[in-house]
Amino acid sequence: MIISELRVTPIAFRDPPLLNADGVHEPHVLRAVIELVTDGPGGGVTGLGECTGHAWQLDWLELIATRIRGMSAYDTGALARLVSELLAGRADGVDYGPDANWRRWSGRTPGSRGPAPVPAPAFDAMRVYSAIEVACLDAQGRRAGVPVVDLLGGRVRDAVPYAGYLFYKWAGHPGSGDDEWGAALDPDGIVAQAERMVDHYGFRSLKLKGGVFPPDEEIAAVRALRAAFPGLPLRIDPNAAWTLTTALAAVRELEGVLEYLEDPVAGVDDMAAVAAATSIPLATNMCVTSLEGVRPALERDAVRIVLGDHHIWGGLRASVALGDVCRAVGWGLSMHSNSHLGISLAAMTHAAAATPGLGHACDTHYPWNAAEDVVLPGALSFQDGSVRVPDGPGLGVQLDRTVLDRLHATYLSLGREHRDDKAYRRSVTP
Amino acid sequence: MIISELRVTPIAFRDPPLLNADGVHEPHVLRAVIELVTDGPGGGVTGLGECTGHAWQLDWLELIATRIRGMSAYDTGALARLVSELLAGRADGVDYGPDANWRRWSGRTPGSRGPAPVPAPAFDAMRVYSAIEVACLDAQGRRAGVPVVDLLGGRVRDAVPYAGYLFYKWAGHPGSGDDEWGAALDPDGIVAQAERMVDHYGFRSLKLKGGVFPPDEEIAAVRALRAAFPGLPLRIDPNAAWTLTTALAAVRELEGVLEYLEDPVAGVDDMAAVAAATSIPLATNMCVTSLEGVRPALERDAVRIVLGDHHIWGGLRASVALGDVCRAVGWGLSMHSNSHLGISLAAMTHAAAATPGLGHACDTHYPWNAAEDVVLPGALSFQDGSVRVPDGPGLGVQLDRTVLDRLHATYLSLGREHRDDKAYRRSVTP
Repeated sequence: MIISELRVTPIAFRDPPLLNADGVHEPHVLRAVIELVTDGPGGGVTGLGECTGHAWQLDWLELIATRIRGMSAYDTGALARLVSELLAGRADGVDYGPDANWRRWSGRTPGSRGPAPVPAPAFDAMRVYSAIEVACLDAQGRRAGVPVVDLLGGRVRDAVPYAGYLFYKWAGHPGSGDDEWGAALDPDGIVAQAERMVDHYGFRSLKLKGGVFPPDEEIAAVRALRAAFPGLPLRIDPNAAWTLTTALAAVRELEGVLEYLEDPVAGVDDMAAVAAATSIPLATNMCVTSLEGVRPALERDAVRIVLGDHHIWGGLRASVALGDVCRAVGWGLSMHSNSHLGISLAAMTHAAAATPGLGHACDTHYPWNAAEDVVLPGALSFQDGSVRVPDGPGLGVQLDRTVLDRLHATYLSLGREHRDDKAYRRSVTP
Repeated sequence: MIISELRVTPIAFRDPPLLNADGVHEPHVLRAVIELVTDGPGGGVTGLGECTGHAWQLDWLELIATRIRGMSAYDTGALARLVSELLAGRADGVDYGPDANWRRWSGRTPGSRGPAPVPAPAFDAMRVYSAIEVACLDAQGRRAGVPVVDLLGGRVRDAVPYAGYLFYKWAGHPGSGDDEWGAALDPDGIVAQAERMVDHYGFRSLKLKGGVFPPDEEIAAVRALRAAFPGLPLRIDPNAAWTLTTALAAVRELEGVLEYLEDPVAGVDDMAAVAAATSIPLATNMCVTSLEGVRPALERDAVRIVLGDHHIWGGLRASVALGDVCRAVGWGLSMHSNSHLGISLAAMTHAAAATPGLGHACDTHYPWNAAEDVVLPGALSFQDGSVRVPDGPGLGVQLDRTVLDRLHATYLSLGREHRDDKAYRRSVTP
């Protein structure tokens, strides 16, 4: 199964004005669809992947596309090495450093397409490789006629529970009128949003993105959710926007109310200080983001639950292995999400279905963006808050090329190359 | 790729009289060869596996063979569930408990084939499933035309270093004359054995199986090895035969001489006491044998290196994931071995080649048993102590059916169903 082409299509899809600790989601999410085209006996298959559409990631993927032809879609070891060597600027002894990148493969000069990527080879390589690994596994599954979950060790569950992901939000983007969700800027608004989410998707866990308003207001929203949904596990994620003092006060208010509290503060030391002051389990996708981060957090007893994410941890196999890591150290495992479409939802579902230690509903932004999905309808749907593992081969989803073309046209029309929630918010409320 | 048959062939192959803490290796090793026969488009393929030939393991495998037909060789999740449910005695609500086992599928009565297996479902299930998982991955690789290492995340090394595994031994089995290796009962004998091993295989690490003679004699042997092979990492494995007092004295003698000391004593507490008294890294395949054993050992700082073993840890994928676990907790990873033939050597090599964190030469008994290998020659060979990952599809080894038939005949002729080094030694030196 030889790779004949790696096609990278940047896309932009609509996103509501969701508030977070950084600012507010811009009107469009930038993302990329990966198509890994392969040849092989009996005809080729194409594997799909999806990742963020930051300029730096697109550039690296396009550089890799120039080198990947002729490699095997099974030899993910060689692909990982190619990615690492290119990103470390030392493939084949040729200078592929972050500056040389543009000059060499595009003839462009640094700066013509946003700032040069800041080199963080190990971390960036994981993200770039992840997108390729998913496409390889999709292709492998399609070729063999088996779902990706079977290539990851096999399913331990047939359907993966997701949490309803609640956001404070404006009624609509400035100048665009109200969107279908309307405003959610206080406890009543959050409860109304949750009711709509639960009615429509059947979620049995709820997560509130916090770090937006003063903690008292957010705690009041959590209490309102607790009253409205007495049986549902609740979590709040202030994205480390709280000070230690604020967090210590907040956990006193939230004791007994939360399933877990995600990243109340930044860094292992402050997380450990909060953890020592409460029986609420602390979760993180910020203070443990790699295997190297596990031991420091463990030694300080800073967290009890890690949120994995195959886009960040190095792909689907690494995500499943993270389940073994968490079991070994006695931590729980949940799953982090960024704004995404159906290719990622399918990949997340296959990985979660193969991970025994995953004991919490996964995060997903999908309800906020599903209206413009790039996959054909039918393969992915929520029932009682869970997504069944698609039965089809590979990821089990098919690309909707009409939508892909439209979202690519949107991307081109925006002239925007980075996600910047902070600048967008400042442009509205300086 | 539908399973049409799981063929389990018990075999017995010659083994020298190697001494260990339990007693002495019997004249023949009992083992089993697994053939997983599959149908599929374009013809079926057969995947190979190899495991111990204890009666209890054969019985469980044969029971599973009666239920496995029609399942997919890709759906290792369903196969793992089948194994777990059968071994826990609750498949399909039918009583498959350890007693019912024999009655139900063989018509035999308990005791007619050795004692009923002691049910330890989780542990036994891992061992039984491991053998099947290897055969499934071999079949998957053969079907796709790719080596198993690629199904495990891809190779991080092309060749896997092994350690020369030195044993105290008698000159030959009683009544059988001397074998080709001769006696090794003192430092000179061990050094002579090591020289032969290194000359023939090129090993660049050496391991001495200890726990046989008084520690002073074994320490003298280690010192003799140190003098004879100044550049080679050395390890000794007393298999927890030392008392804490003995071990504390021994580490004072061995400081600065060893790469690592394996299981000097039994249990986390005593291991921690030894670890606290020495800078020699302690390794184990006895006090950490599952993910659940990691945290207790970590909290006591009882070990620095874990020896994985795909036969015990639940297969090749679990072995590779153990590498992530060790990286996360800051431990080193090595690999344990039991007496084995080429199918296992190939499987060990594929797993090790896919495991980034594996930083020590792997153990192997192969030199002691290679003369009666069940795989056709050519695929596996040692160069500078390392085995290259076979290039062929799957495990890359082919069954030698003539040898298999001969070893099976030997098994039948022995009338022996368990390994019992202790009883064998007592029969010679009561």
